[in-house]
Amino acid sequence: MLLHFSPTKPLFFPPNPRRNPPLSPPKSLRIRAIDAAQIYDYETHLKSEHIKSTSLKIAVLGFGNFGQFLSKTLIRHGHDLITHSRSDYSSAASSIGARFFHNPHDLCEQHPDVVLLCTSILSTESVLRSFPFQRLRRSTLFVDVLSVKEFPKTLFLKYLPREFDILCTHPMFGPESGKHSWSGLPFVYDKVRIGEEESRGERCERFLKVFESEGCRMVEMSCEEHDKHAAGSQFVTHTMGRVLEKFGVESSPINTKGYETLLDLVENTSSDSFELYYGLFMYNQNALEQLERLDMAFESIKKELFGRLHQVYRKQMFGSGGDGKRSEQKLLNNGLGVPMKEESSSSS
Amino acid sequence: MLLHFSPTKPLFFPPNPRRNPPLSPPKSLRIRAIDAAQIYDYETHLKSEHIKSTSLKIAVLGFGNFGQFLSKTLIRHGHDLITHSRSDYSSAASSIGARFFHNPHDLCEQHPDVVLLCTSILSTESVLRSFPFQRLRRSTLFVDVLSVKEFPKTLFLKYLPREFDILCTHPMFGPESGKHSWSGLPFVYDKVRIGEEESRGERCERFLKVFESEGCRMVEMSCEEHDKHAAGSQFVTHTMGRVLEKFGVESSPINTKGYETLLDLVENTSSDSFELYYGLFMYNQNALEQLERLDMAFESIKKELFGRLHQVYRKQMFGSGGDGKRSEQKLLNNGLGVPMKEESSSSS
Repeated sequence: MLLHFSPTKPLFFPPNPRRNPPLSPPKSLRIRAIDAAQIYDYETHLKSEHIKSTSLKIAVLGFGNFGQFLSKTLIRHGHDLITHSRSDYSSAASSIGARFFHNPHDLCEQHPDVVLLCTSILSTESVLRSFPFQRLRRSTLFVDVLSVKEFPKTLFLKYLPREFDILCTHPMFGPESGKHSWSGLPFVYDKVRIGEEESRGERCERFLKVFESEGCRMVEMSCEEHDKHAAGSQFVTHTMGRVLEKFGVESSPINTKGYETLLDLVENTSSDSFELYYGLFMYNQNALEQLERLDMAFESIKKELFGRLHQVYRKQMFGSGGDGKRSEQKLLNNGLGVPMKEESSSSS
Repeated sequence: MLLHFSPTKPLFFPPNPRRNPPLSPPKSLRIRAIDAAQIYDYETHLKSEHIKSTSLKIAVLGFGNFGQFLSKTLIRHGHDLITHSRSDYSSAASSIGARFFHNPHDLCEQHPDVVLLCTSILSTESVLRSFPFQRLRRSTLFVDVLSVKEFPKTLFLKYLPREFDILCTHPMFGPESGKHSWSGLPFVYDKVRIGEEESRGERCERFLKVFESEGCRMVEMSCEEHDKHAAGSQFVTHTMGRVLEKFGVESSPINTKGYETLLDLVENTSSDSFELYYGLFMYNQNALEQLERLDMAFESIKKELFGRLHQVYRKQMFGSGGDGKRSEQKLLNNGLGVPMKEESSSSS
């Protein structure tokens, strides 16, 4: 509604014969409404209709750390959040504007458009096995966010009624790495089964839109391909982080840049549970191979070091032979040999 | 020399009876020198005298990658650089303004104030063993920059004439990590033996001043303490970098932040030679213990993973027992068991 303030001297309005009869100059200060109130209401109405039409009712199953982390952003994008977890998270839910249901049957009777599984890898099957699918609409979209992808895909295809849509996703960040922004962080997804009706495709896109508009790097990739890449990167990263944590890296007065990288890594992975790490190992069939390769790489480095050491000792015992000179190598205080080879090199 | 430009209207100069007789106002544009030429020469003279008195003649032994890297900065700070290496680096030397000597005797006859050893760890002893110390002044200061510290300290004390000063240092950065700036990077030093004469102390301080004024974090620490810290940090960092390089980490389409940390680490350490890594292992008596601890940490992580796996299989074979229910765990396609435990958790 536009309000025009007209002082004693009138403003000049070009004559509009269709709407306004020529105005006689007003004699005193007065307020006039130029456009009608209904225009304002109409726009608001249109806007709320639009929000209603694009917002999804999303049921989050498992309202732990990661479920709450995702829910906050989903709510910020105008979606209606309902949630259920075995533990009572009702106050955590209400604090971010979601509704908590103690009974999964009650949750399902709310007829959510999307059911988002935020359970741990290890609990996913037991949750699915006992879930009251029959209370949901037959067109419901199921989404998971597990760090392994073939496993939930197999479970979904096994347990879900055939009419349900399936979207497998992996937001490759968490409450720590995505604390400030999701911009540039990878979001992997595989549209495993989306019905042909236009509305089903649109619903899936509307869900993905949340991550896209947060700036995630959207990577469409099959679950199998994801697991191959993730075993070589994410699982190896977690393994290194855990090994260094177990080793007990600590800040020293003489940290190099490289060492600080390791300290960061430990901080990054130690906040994740052993359950997650075990899940990455257990439920990604490529993980064992990568663990074995890492083991071999470590053994090979040790062999190189000790092999070299062995060589030096042998030379000391039997002499260098070939060049006719007698070896002059000596033992230092710590019992290590001093070889002869020379080249000026770097120190870092 | 200050030149005053006086337009047709003269500038006002307060009368100075000691130097300038009162000036009659000039009639046209002219240029006058206010302070005498000798002042200028005098200041320049003073400055060059000052530079001469604070500049050191530094002989760099071993003019490889790291020797050249340090020399550039030493020259920038006004020091006179002379150098010798087994390989011919004469053009590299002249390109940065240093003089190269093919024969170490010629180098020593230049009577450097400081001899800076930039040899590799492995070649240090053979270089010292054959060095013509007798051609140097008896007060020469010897400095090393090796990544291990007890080892060169022991060698210096063994080979150097008793009159020589000894400063053991470790600039904990290299041509890669110190490419843009040395600001905040640690510089560890141990004044192993500095003669009591004031000039000897000053010379040592003048050398350290270079690193201090480049912004290094100056850490005075005994060689023994350095080696203890460095085995836990620098050697472990290099080991992790080499293991990951051998493993073959590669950028994937779905890099997590943590994984990118690992890629950085490999890039950081792979530019260093195996010689350096071997030196860190061989000439730091704490390194073996740290390698063993790392090995144990890795074994312990593997045990945790496989132990858990074993437990799951046993439960499957013998039933869960305690709670009276029969275990319902199933095998997935990849032959891994699915345990029952549930909790919503994080994914990252």
